[in-house]
Amino acid sequence: MFEARLNQADIWKKVIDAIKDLVQEATLDCTENGISLQAMDNAHVSLVSLLLRSDGFETYRCDRNLSLGLNITRYLGLIYIQPSSTSKILKCASGTDAVTLKAGDKADTLTFVFESRNQEKVSDFEIKLMDLDVDHLGIPDTDYKCVIKMPSSELQRICRDLSQIGDSVVISVAKDGVSFSSTGDLGTGNIKLSQSANADKPEEAVSIEMNEAVSMTYSLHYFNIFTKATPLSSQVVLSLTENVPAVVEFNIDDLGYIRYYLAPKIEDDAD
Amino acid sequence: MFEARLNQADIWKKVIDAIKDLVQEATLDCTENGISLQAMDNAHVSLVSLLLRSDGFETYRCDRNLSLGLNITRYLGLIYIQPSSTSKILKCASGTDAVTLKAGDKADTLTFVFESRNQEKVSDFEIKLMDLDVDHLGIPDTDYKCVIKMPSSELQRICRDLSQIGDSVVISVAKDGVSFSSTGDLGTGNIKLSQSANADKPEEAVSIEMNEAVSMTYSLHYFNIFTKATPLSSQVVLSLTENVPAVVEFNIDDLGYIRYYLAPKIEDDAD
Amino acid sequence: MFEARLNQADIWKKVIDAIKDLVQEATLDCTENGISLQAMDNAHVSLVSLLLRSDGFETYRCDRNLSLGLNITRYLGLIYIQPSSTSKILKCASGTDAVTLKAGDKADTLTFVFESRNQEKVSDFEIKLMDLDVDHLGIPDTDYKCVIKMPSSELQRICRDLSQIGDSVVISVAKDGVSFSSTGDLGTGNIKLSQSANADKPEEAVSIEMNEAVSMTYSLHYFNIFTKATPLSSQVVLSLTENVPAVVEFNIDDLGYIRYYLAPKIEDDAD
Repeated sequence: MFEARLNQADIWKKVIDAIKDLVQEATLDCTENGISLQAMDNAHVSLVSLLLRSDGFETYRCDRNLSLGLNITRYLGLIYIQPSSTSKILKCASGTDAVTLKAGDKADTLTFVFESRNQEKVSDFEIKLMDLDVDHLGIPDTDYKCVIKMPSSELQRICRDLSQIGDSVVISVAKDGVSFSSTGDLGTGNIKLSQSANADKPEEAVSIEMNEAVSMTYSLHYFNIFTKATPLSSQVVLSLTENVPAVVEFNIDDLGYIRYYLAPKIEDDAD
Repeated sequence: MFEARLNQADIWKKVIDAIKDLVQEATLDCTENGISLQAMDNAHVSLVSLLLRSDGFETYRCDRNLSLGLNITRYLGLIYIQPSSTSKILKCASGTDAVTLKAGDKADTLTFVFESRNQEKVSDFEIKLMDLDVDHLGIPDTDYKCVIKMPSSELQRICRDLSQIGDSVVISVAKDGVSFSSTGDLGTGNIKLSQSANADKPEEAVSIEMNEAVSMTYSLHYFNIFTKATPLSSQVVLSLTENVPAVVEFNIDDLGYIRYYLAPKIEDDAD
Repeated sequence: MFEARLNQADIWKKVIDAIKDLVQEATLDCTENGISLQAMDNAHVSLVSLLLRSDGFETYRCDRNLSLGLNITRYLGLIYIQPSSTSKILKCASGTDAVTLKAGDKADTLTFVFESRNQEKVSDFEIKLMDLDVDHLGIPDTDYKCVIKMPSSELQRICRDLSQIGDSVVISVAKDGVSFSSTGDLGTGNIKLSQSANADKPEEAVSIEMNEAVSMTYSLHYFNIFTKATPLSSQVVLSLTENVPAVVEFNIDDLGYIRYYLAPKIEDDAD
């Protein structure tokens, strides 16, 4: 038997929003330690890794390890049809509902129970699960040369703005600041953020740890998808090393994290 | 001569919004008692009935009975073209304008006069009326087995959420609560509301009067259209009896009501 | 060298929004007195004239006269593709950023520098300029018979509302008020504004100076485009004379103005 209760349905909504543009189907791996999900995007270019620790849940029980195959988004040919089962079901919860996930040991269905604050409205939605091939990917440990913490909304804004100019972003890190640059038909754009601390508003701080200057080129398309996780965390951590996949990490308070991995573009004209 | 003045143009806007997805053309029947409208939807499946009593208007005068044929929505083939005359004209009023409807005894045009609070802006719109066949439908009096009062926004939310799951809703009433269920390809959903009273917020109360348990199946498509009347009233009243059309009623403060009638689905697999 | 700094990027955003539906390309003429732009719309029916005086800028320097050919909107055949370089770049500024325009004397590129309030984020965008034919149009001085000052949002609302009725608006001015009328298939609409003063809210006043009654017909299509400038100014000034182009003027505080010129419709059936 598996049962995991959170007081805020909002977190599940935001988690699904953070992965639904990247993966079509994915497996929630449930153990006594918590729930994890790891999946490559449909084009096999980037990787998303989610962890929600059991001790962050209001109640959590997992008698034996389960793999729950979720349908996140439904495609028809090349076109998005619409968010499918999981996204649709979560739309039926209010953000302030408590949500409990339940599955039996056979794990062929997953039930979402939503309870309103005052318990006057109780909804349960049972969805059929999918049998998915599970491929666990080893992620090598890396000592990253640069680690940048910055407001997640600022990263989202920068990636959106530079998408107006080009397809790629060059991220260049120096001791005192980080710059994001893009070039395209209409011209060039450069955005520079200085290291800054704001004791009153720590969520607006920009901090840079640097062992070695790094300047690498990444696909803006993927960065724009990763920043869909912005509502989960006020800060984002970028870990960069030359010629190694970048990590874009959003912490989920008291529960865990969502991390995205993306290899740099290594082209003659890219940097 | 016919003249009827309301201090809030908002009410007319909301009334038209509540019927415009259901009927294309309709007749406003004006008498000294008030204004009424009765129409079947285009598919002849449901019925809408509106009453605005003369004593709810700021001023009201109707020298002889008139039938005003209104064009509510304009279709072209299967496609919505756009809201037509009546909806368009009401978009030209601010919600806080006073609105006066005027028609002569020939009733070939209807004039809407909108006056801003400070009288500095006065608009009049004269639209041509249509000659419509009027078919008054007798609605038999029924003693309903179950009468449910609940927040109208909650009914709207439930119908919208269950539309993610299936095409029909099974409404089942018991002494202590009412449940709304739907089944579809991706699974099943059940939403249960308990009877509840909230002295501070009577508009959030759920009350159930039941003589006999009822469990019937209805089209969610029509329920979603009926709940377009939600802005007119904080509470909605559902009156249900097995194998008899359900009534979905929204009260319009001091003025009257809008009621929708819909027969249950009677299929082998429906309940 | 040319350099012009404003503390509010918002003003440039609003100026571009006010002309982007009218002109595809336009030349910013920069002199020591300020920046001006004059262009006919793509159909050569109306004219827009912009002036931003040098003394309204935080800092302003223009060593020699420059003509900067801007691409405002990109069309592909008959269809809008999307806002092009200038609009796109301005989307990358926050409304509260300071913005500096810079160009060298060769004037083949224009650089926008955006600085956040706290200087922690500095962006520069360099766009390529276009070589445009410049045709300066002489605008004859006219003593207008009627000058109407009114809230710009009211004019926007009236033009939008009357567009529901017809394609043209008849503007008729009398001593005590101005009326806007339109006629179409579904009927007629008349909106009358009375002269009014509001000492507390001067931006809501309607004032009329009239030497001679005027009643002329104009294209609502163009008036709807002109009122895109509404965010620039709380009041708009309409200057009208029979059979002479109307002027619709929006003041830009401390900086200058944007003026639109539109000839009246002179048709047998129009007035």
